[in-house]
Amino acid sequence: MAIKQKPTEASEAIATEEILALRVGGKPRPRTDLLAREEPLEIRVRGKSVVVTMRTPGHDAELAAGFLCTEALLRKRSDLVEIAHCQQGEAALHGNVLNVFLAPSVEIDFERLTRHVFASSSCGLCGKASIEAVQQQFPPVVSKMRISAKTLAALPEKLRAAQDAFEQTGGLHAAALFNARGKMLVLREDVGRHNAVDKVIGHAFLNSLLPLDGHVLLVSGRASFEILQKALAARISIIAAVSAPSSLAVEFARESGQTLVGFLRGNTMNLYAHPERITTR
Amino acid sequence: MAIKQKPTEASEAIATEEILALRVGGKPRPRTDLLAREEPLEIRVRGKSVVVTMRTPGHDAELAAGFLCTEALLRKRSDLVEIAHCQQGEAALHGNVLNVFLAPSVEIDFERLTRHVFASSSCGLCGKASIEAVQQQFPPVVSKMRISAKTLAALPEKLRAAQDAFEQTGGLHAAALFNARGKMLVLREDVGRHNAVDKVIGHAFLNSLLPLDGHVLLVSGRASFEILQKALAARISIIAAVSAPSSLAVEFARESGQTLVGFLRGNTMNLYAHPERITTR
Repeated sequence: MAIKQKPTEASEAIATEEILALRVGGKPRPRTDLLAREEPLEIRVRGKSVVVTMRTPGHDAELAAGFLCTEALLRKRSDLVEIAHCQQGEAALHGNVLNVFLAPSVEIDFERLTRHVFASSSCGLCGKASIEAVQQQFPPVVSKMRISAKTLAALPEKLRAAQDAFEQTGGLHAAALFNARGKMLVLREDVGRHNAVDKVIGHAFLNSLLPLDGHVLLVSGRASFEILQKALAARISIIAAVSAPSSLAVEFARESGQTLVGFLRGNTMNLYAHPERITTR
Repeated sequence: MAIKQKPTEASEAIATEEILALRVGGKPRPRTDLLAREEPLEIRVRGKSVVVTMRTPGHDAELAAGFLCTEALLRKRSDLVEIAHCQQGEAALHGNVLNVFLAPSVEIDFERLTRHVFASSSCGLCGKASIEAVQQQFPPVVSKMRISAKTLAALPEKLRAAQDAFEQTGGLHAAALFNARGKMLVLREDVGRHNAVDKVIGHAFLNSLLPLDGHVLLVSGRASFEILQKALAARISIIAAVSAPSSLAVEFARESGQTLVGFLRGNTMNLYAHPERITTR
């Protein structure tokens, strides 16, 4: 199976712009600034466009694989035949259209893939179908994984250290996978928090590392419902966020059997769901 | 025209949960934590579901009006007849489905509304149609508005002061509108940055305050392409962000005639596009 993908370079993720820096009372001074790149990526499956996402270029095949895995379309490695940038017409120039080729056996529920539904159901249904479509149906995670609070508390610093190469823009979200001993497997960055998570999961999927029930997913910002759901698709049992979780993320984690840690900063953390996986000895 | 909407209360935007606070080397201690609420909202237009967005409950009619305005469906106040929570079935209990009733004269391009397109175009098109669908076609903004750097630098503190009532969770994005003298017109918060902006613009739309070419939009976090585009739909000429803009936000602002200010912190700011509207005397 071929994943045709250029390696990501800093120049792909970061743009350089001439701007003006201004201090109140002073005059604007020219400065060169680094910006996180944001460009649309269209993902096509069997020739059909399933999503256009605003993402930071680089690791596009991972993003597509992760997106389709967390949308429950890709279930095993052999479901995927090839991911390739579109080579025709204008799209080839920009590299912003990806074609995903699946094994013939894979059945696709295109309806389900297009979350932002466009149904013409009557008000009697009251959107139940649509709102339930937001919730994928993955079974709860079962994992005997344990990690010590000490190991966990050390992860954000490892994330930041690994980020240093790219994170000069202040505009990128980061997501990374660690094992129970705190070893980092992969780190990805993106202007979209969900894209960073898709890239990390896609990387693991492409390398046949799923299920990830012995791993921790760390995100640099907040934890939303969507992050928890994507992690569940990959069977990740511990999700840690440097910042706050939302109410629905907490609710979801409690039902899905996932451990949810928030405000992981310095030596402290908040445990929102299934704290039994965090050991304190 | 009736906008049926309950006033937002803190209890609507914030959930209380019993959690454990843990310090490395210590034992977990029970604590009551405040979380930003995150729930799905389905917006229906003429009975058709056009979007399901994960949002913080409260100001739902503003969110719907702002979304439809920035998607170029609502152009003037009289296009909108009524916005009401669905009263039938299960949806009535949760308040997560909104029905939008439009004037009969309004023509809807449902195709364009469903951005996450599901087209079956061949690879020859190479997604061009889909990717262009991401870009709404609004004309550039023309505005003689000026604001002093000093007035602008004072806005983030005004935002934070007004946020204090709700922002106890660390999980909410804020957006606010100010006039050229730095007076705040409206502030809204949401787990989704784009929702906070939609609510602010929706508020202005419902109160017939558009176009907003004499106003500044301030966001508490980063500025993405989408924020700039939504602002352009409301004809906002100055967009300021406390954090970094993306490359596409800068590119968009330069083409759209919008002034883009980033890293607005303390007495300093970066000017990314159309700095002529920021005066230094």
